[in-house]
Amino acid sequence: MFSDFASHFGINNIPYGVASSTRWPTPQCVTRIDNDVISLADLADKGIFDGVAENLAKVFHERTLNPFAALSKDIHAKVRSAIQSAYKDGKLDGCSEHVDNVQMHLPVQIGDFSDFSGSMNHMGNMSEVISGKRTIPPMFHKFPPVYAGRCSSIYISGTPVTRPLGHSFEDFTAPEKGIVFGPCRILDYELEVGAIIGSPVEPSTMLHAKDADEHIFGLVLVNDWSARDIQVCEMTPLGPFNGKNFATTISPWIITLEALEPYRTPAPELSVTEFLDDPNSMNYKIDLGVEVTRNGTKSKVCEVNFDTMHWTLRQMLAHHTIGGCGLRTGDLIATGTVSGVGETEHGCLMELTKGGRKPFTLSDGNDLRYLEDGDIVQFTGLLADGVGFGECTGQVRPAPKLP
Amino acid sequence: MFSDFASHFGINNIPYGVASSTRWPTPQCVTRIDNDVISLADLADKGIFDGVAENLAKVFHERTLNPFAALSKDIHAKVRSAIQSAYKDGKLDGCSEHVDNVQMHLPVQIGDFSDFSGSMNHMGNMSEVISGKRTIPPMFHKFPPVYAGRCSSIYISGTPVTRPLGHSFEDFTAPEKGIVFGPCRILDYELEVGAIIGSPVEPSTMLHAKDADEHIFGLVLVNDWSARDIQVCEMTPLGPFNGKNFATTISPWIITLEALEPYRTPAPELSVTEFLDDPNSMNYKIDLGVEVTRNGTKSKVCEVNFDTMHWTLRQMLAHHTIGGCGLRTGDLIATGTVSGVGETEHGCLMELTKGGRKPFTLSDGNDLRYLEDGDIVQFTGLLADGVGFGECTGQVRPAPKLP
Repeated sequence: MFSDFASHFGINNIPYGVASSTRWPTPQCVTRIDNDVISLADLADKGIFDGVAENLAKVFHERTLNPFAALSKDIHAKVRSAIQSAYKDGKLDGCSEHVDNVQMHLPVQIGDFSDFSGSMNHMGNMSEVISGKRTIPPMFHKFPPVYAGRCSSIYISGTPVTRPLGHSFEDFTAPEKGIVFGPCRILDYELEVGAIIGSPVEPSTMLHAKDADEHIFGLVLVNDWSARDIQVCEMTPLGPFNGKNFATTISPWIITLEALEPYRTPAPELSVTEFLDDPNSMNYKIDLGVEVTRNGTKSKVCEVNFDTMHWTLRQMLAHHTIGGCGLRTGDLIATGTVSGVGETEHGCLMELTKGGRKPFTLSDGNDLRYLEDGDIVQFTGLLADGVGFGECTGQVRPAPKLP
Repeated sequence: MFSDFASHFGINNIPYGVASSTRWPTPQCVTRIDNDVISLADLADKGIFDGVAENLAKVFHERTLNPFAALSKDIHAKVRSAIQSAYKDGKLDGCSEHVDNVQMHLPVQIGDFSDFSGSMNHMGNMSEVISGKRTIPPMFHKFPPVYAGRCSSIYISGTPVTRPLGHSFEDFTAPEKGIVFGPCRILDYELEVGAIIGSPVEPSTMLHAKDADEHIFGLVLVNDWSARDIQVCEMTPLGPFNGKNFATTISPWIITLEALEPYRTPAPELSVTEFLDDPNSMNYKIDLGVEVTRNGTKSKVCEVNFDTMHWTLRQMLAHHTIGGCGLRTGDLIATGTVSGVGETEHGCLMELTKGGRKPFTLSDGNDLRYLEDGDIVQFTGLLADGVGFGECTGQVRPAPKLP
């Protein structure tokens, strides 16, 4: 239940989302404190934001947070403070619904989705699983690798994920045996964090990493579901496509950089091109976790901190824009799988089970190699008592019958 | 000038676009006959479409063609016929502007852009240029390769294209020499055709190739500008990103399948999975051309027919949706570079100049290896007198100063 995560949403969080309910049949902009989902439009109507900006009531009645995310950081800060003051002054009465009584929706309209691969541990682990050697491609030391993902398949936490059909090598380890068609046999998750763009970056602007926070509205958790067999068969030379585009799940609450600021931690110092250089390079101390529920039994399969990342989100935004590409409000920029060095810190099953060769033992003693139909995958992210992401969850549904 | 292409837009074409002008300051939906750009909203207000569908005046006053494209093929057919009748009956007076007096805009809002690689000739030619061997990856015979492109960088014909900055191998042919940062040194175009999705494909629908035309509103020309040096440095293993996402140009007029129907031609018979199988597989006889203008002198550098494609757009849509991915109205599905087997049929400069090693001689006797600043690239596509795409054009601007 959503209400399990009340402790993530204290007065120092003030996340943003979009919700509907019996009282609010049309999705609208909301925040959350403990288990109360609060209508920002109602707060605006009550005058809580008077003097902060024009038209906030209209902005908060929209079905997406894009118009709000596009406003200045100064306005975001004033809105946050006004909500905190209203809470302290007991002025939120009549503006909220219990979280179990609302339906959450995608918080923004996402015009483009870019998925980076910013963890050196993940890259090394995957290389070891696939080739037996821990190889990091030389370009990884110069810039963060990335591919463009699919926007129409981004779903809100709680949406079931259907096992895809597709082409794959009959034998994953012996491509020469040929290509077959059928349901995905190697279904995986990828534990990621994503930035939602606030203020846009105009084409040909070429952002420096050190200035990139100005354009990040906030962060969400991302599950980049991956059909490994389909992905491996298709990705040379154009990259992943059907192996990824059947589903990507995001958590419903956007956690702002203001809420995250107290949990900053230094990022690796890198010797890089000037526009990627960031004298105060930093990550956030986010305790990320993955739990898999199979046959009603929940097992913790990963605990890893976001501070293990090699490339920062700031650097990802800088690399993204250096060729002249713009970023629009609502764009999703994901970090790629977050993995540490330890055996309990693997952000995907390919790493955890060494390509399925070394099963993980679930709480009930059964083996986990890859995802089976019915499995529920739940990501969580917590910074400290009162500041967290809640959950990013999806259950695997069986593949459709062959057409 | 746009008016050079009057002969592409006879009474049997009836393309759709979005235009503004002094009289129509807000972009709205239009068609074109000869050199007259005709307001569809004006026609609706005059009653030309009475009885065809509700609210067409509102639909045609929109800034994009998405609401119209989403309507049924039956309505599209009736609108086309009503325009043709009104023309014959001399009822278009007062509803049009000369093409030189309008500004064309992106015809649709594009929610996702997928770029295939459906020409076997292109794949073989590129392999030969890069490795000296004509290798087709085995998966190409099973399904069309594809990557996800960038939506925010799709521009309308006529928009200048700025040479991107980026990371590349110091020596294109010797990656071990290291990676440098600076302006793209190997700028290329790619001659492509793109389908615009009309009626959407819901997620998990899994389209069969034979049924895919139902979801194609029409076709446009696409220039998938490519920074080859940046692309080569980044594309293993995640595919192209900054090498492509600085700009993609599309032609302003969407040519409907109805206008193209008389120019169908059989496509290769392939032995493929059932959902890709298409008993009446077909391409269109589109004469595609590329002209490069340098220092005021125009040179024809490519003439190739679209019937050289190995994979059809129908098969591309089927492959795209087989894993459960949906398609939304306005999505752009491009074919990849169209190339033939002859020396005059190369859809990009990498092929034409053998990776820059064998320059092409321009009309004025100078050498063309790759695109230089100031070069104008113009694509055209013609089916027969009166039915064509017009042009898809862009001029290369110098890279910005290093930041």
